[in-house]
Amino acid sequence: MIYFDANASVPVRDTAKDAIKNALSLDGNPSSPHGRGRKIRQLLDNARKSVASALGGLEKQVVFTSGATEGNRWLTQALHLLALKNGRPLNIATSSLEHPSMAKPLLNQSAQDLFRLYEIPVSLDGEWDLDAIPWAQMDVVQTTLAHNETGLLLPADAIAERLSESTLWAVDASQSFARIEKPPQRTDFIVVSGHKAGAPSGCGAILMRGRAQALPTPWLGGGQENGLRPGTEAWLLQLAFGAVCEEITEIRKANQALVSWRDNVEKILLNEWPGAQVLFQKCDRLPNTSAIVLNGVNGEALRMAVDVSGVCVGFGAACSALAPEPSPALLALGLTPQQARSTLRISLPTDLSEENLHLGLKRLVAVGKRLLQR
Amino acid sequence: MIYFDANASVPVRDTAKDAIKNALSLDGNPSSPHGRGRKIRQLLDNARKSVASALGGLEKQVVFTSGATEGNRWLTQALHLLALKNGRPLNIATSSLEHPSMAKPLLNQSAQDLFRLYEIPVSLDGEWDLDAIPWAQMDVVQTTLAHNETGLLLPADAIAERLSESTLWAVDASQSFARIEKPPQRTDFIVVSGHKAGAPSGCGAILMRGRAQALPTPWLGGGQENGLRPGTEAWLLQLAFGAVCEEITEIRKANQALVSWRDNVEKILLNEWPGAQVLFQKCDRLPNTSAIVLNGVNGEALRMAVDVSGVCVGFGAACSALAPEPSPALLALGLTPQQARSTLRISLPTDLSEENLHLGLKRLVAVGKRLLQR
Repeated sequence: MIYFDANASVPVRDTAKDAIKNALSLDGNPSSPHGRGRKIRQLLDNARKSVASALGGLEKQVVFTSGATEGNRWLTQALHLLALKNGRPLNIATSSLEHPSMAKPLLNQSAQDLFRLYEIPVSLDGEWDLDAIPWAQMDVVQTTLAHNETGLLLPADAIAERLSESTLWAVDASQSFARIEKPPQRTDFIVVSGHKAGAPSGCGAILMRGRAQALPTPWLGGGQENGLRPGTEAWLLQLAFGAVCEEITEIRKANQALVSWRDNVEKILLNEWPGAQVLFQKCDRLPNTSAIVLNGVNGEALRMAVDVSGVCVGFGAACSALAPEPSPALLALGLTPQQARSTLRISLPTDLSEENLHLGLKRLVAVGKRLLQR
Repeated sequence: MIYFDANASVPVRDTAKDAIKNALSLDGNPSSPHGRGRKIRQLLDNARKSVASALGGLEKQVVFTSGATEGNRWLTQALHLLALKNGRPLNIATSSLEHPSMAKPLLNQSAQDLFRLYEIPVSLDGEWDLDAIPWAQMDVVQTTLAHNETGLLLPADAIAERLSESTLWAVDASQSFARIEKPPQRTDFIVVSGHKAGAPSGCGAILMRGRAQALPTPWLGGGQENGLRPGTEAWLLQLAFGAVCEEITEIRKANQALVSWRDNVEKILLNEWPGAQVLFQKCDRLPNTSAIVLNGVNGEALRMAVDVSGVCVGFGAACSALAPEPSPALLALGLTPQQARSTLRISLPTDLSEENLHLGLKRLVAVGKRLLQR
C-alpha cells in the first residue's frame, strides 16, 4: 500500500508514538486535585505551550478539543448565540472551499436568518475577487487557510489588509499550519486538528485571542479548559499533539521539500494522461497536494481501480468520501458533477520514500491510462 | 501514591494499553475509501460491536463520541431542537444528582422556557419519591444510573414501570455500566465514557435505539458515525474502549468484589473518625464508592492534608474539583456548604492491592483524626 493521502490523515509521527507509549504509564484525571491529577495536568499544560507556540499564540489562549470539527462546531454555536444576543443576523464572509464541518453549519444558520453569508468568489484560475465583499460591513470572516481538496491557499495577507478593526477573523488552519506556517497574527480564532499534523485523530485545539475573547460561551458542563470546553481532555492524544508541535519547524521544512516531488508527479501525470488537468496548478498551494481531473473517466471506476492497484489517494473530503455525492467545493468552482467525481487528490506525506513515490506513481499512471483508453 | 479515585478516572487497563500499542502501527482515516482506511474502519466497527454488546444493544446503535460530556451535549441539543419543532417546552423528569455536563445544560434550557424540569425528589436516606412526578406527562426522563459522588443507584426498575410508552428515557451510564450491569433494556439513549471503564479519556459512546431514533440530529458536518457525530473518530482510543468492553464481565465481577473492602473501609473510618457519616450507607450503591462527611473539618485543609499524605481521593466531580464551590448535588441533598466541602469520596479501583488498600486507609485514618482533633 502506497500512501498518497496525507490530507485525509497524516501518518502518526514517531515522536507522537513515543509520547503515547511514555504516557501509558500514567493514570488519572487532569482535573483531580491530587498528585496524580496534577502530574497529568502539568504534562497537558506543557503540550498546550507547544501547541500555542506552533500557532504563534500564548498557552492561555489554547483550548483543547477532539479535533477541527469540534472547533468549527464551537465557533458556529458561539456565533449563533452572538446573533441572538445582537438581535440581528451576523454578516459573515466565507468561501466555497470550506470543509463540510464549517460549510454545512454556516448554511444551516443562514437558512434560519441568523447569518447573512457573503461568499468570496474564487475562479478555477485561483483568482479571488476580494472586491466583491463589502469588508467594512463584515462582523465575521470565516475562511480555511488551505483547501483540503486542492491545496489552494487563501490570499490571507490581502484579506488581512481589508479587514475592519472590529471584524472577527476565524480560520480553519487544519491543513496549513503544519505544512506552511503559523496563521497570520491578525487571526482571532484558529482551529486545528492533531491528525493533520502527525498526531492520532481525536485531538486538536482552538486558539482564541483578540476579538474571540468577546464571543459568548456555547457549552456548559464541567470546568475543564477554563470552562470553554467541558469534558475530560483526551490527554494521551494531546500529549502526542504537543510532541508533534515541538517539531513543527522540521515538519514544515519537510513539507516544503515535497514541492519538487509534487511538481514532478504532476508533470508526469499530465504527460501520461491525455486531457487531464491539475487544479490551481499555477497558484499558491500546499506543497504536498495535487488535485487532478481525469476528464472522461468514470469516478467510481477510477476510485476502485486506484484502490485495487494498492495506492491510497483522496476523493473529496475523507469524512464524506464514502458518500456518493460529488464534492460541493469542486462543483462550486465550476466543475461538472462528472469532473468532480473523477478528481483524484494526491497528498504526499513527509515520510514517503523515493522508492514508494515512484512505485505509487507508476501504478497511478497505469490505472489512469487504462481507464482513459476505454 | 495510593489511588482511591477510580470514579474520576479508572486506571488504564492492560488490554487497553495493548490495543493502543498494537494500533500504533496503523495509519489512516477510517472514512477513507481505500485499503488503509478500510482496515481501520473494520477494527473500529469491531470495537463498536464490543461496546454495543457491553451496553446490551446493537452495533448499528452505537455512535462514538469523545466522552460522556459530548454525549450529554448531543442529547441537550437534540432536545432543544425537538422543543422548537414541537412549539412547546418539553416536560423532562430528572434528578438533582446529574453530572454538571447534564445538569447545567438542562437548567440553561429551562431558563429559556424550552424545557420544563421535574426533579425526582431524593432524600439523604436515599428514598426516591417517585410519586412526586406526573410520569404520564413526561416527554423525556433523563437520569444518571449511578451518582458519581456518592455511588447511589437510581431505582431504575421502579422508574421503568412508571414510564409511559412514548416517554424517551435517556441515561448517563458512565459510572455504572462497567461496575454493575448493562443499562435497562427500556432505556432509549445511553451515554458512556471510556475512561470510567479502563480506556484512556477522550473516547466514549452513545447508544441510541427505540424512541431516540426519532430525535432531531443536532450536528452537521462530515458523514462520520452515520452523520450523527461529524469528525474523524479517535480510533486509537476507541479500539482501547472496545478491548475493555470485551472484558466487561470480568470487570463487573472485579468491581462487585470490591464491596467487602469498601464496607470494611467504611467500618474502620466511622470507628476512627468521631461524628463522620457515610452518605447512603444502607442504600443500593456502586460497589466501589464511599462518600464520607467529616463533620466539623475544614474542607480545604482536608483536601490538602489527604493529598500531602499521598492518597488520591475525590472531592465533588473531578471536572470541577479545582473550583472552590461545594458540590451542587450534595447541597441539593440537604448538606450544608461546610459539610459538602468536607465530604471525601473514596472510589476503589479494581487493580488495587490489599497492601495499598491498608496503607491508604492507614494514612486516611491519621489525617482525619488529626483534623478532627483540631
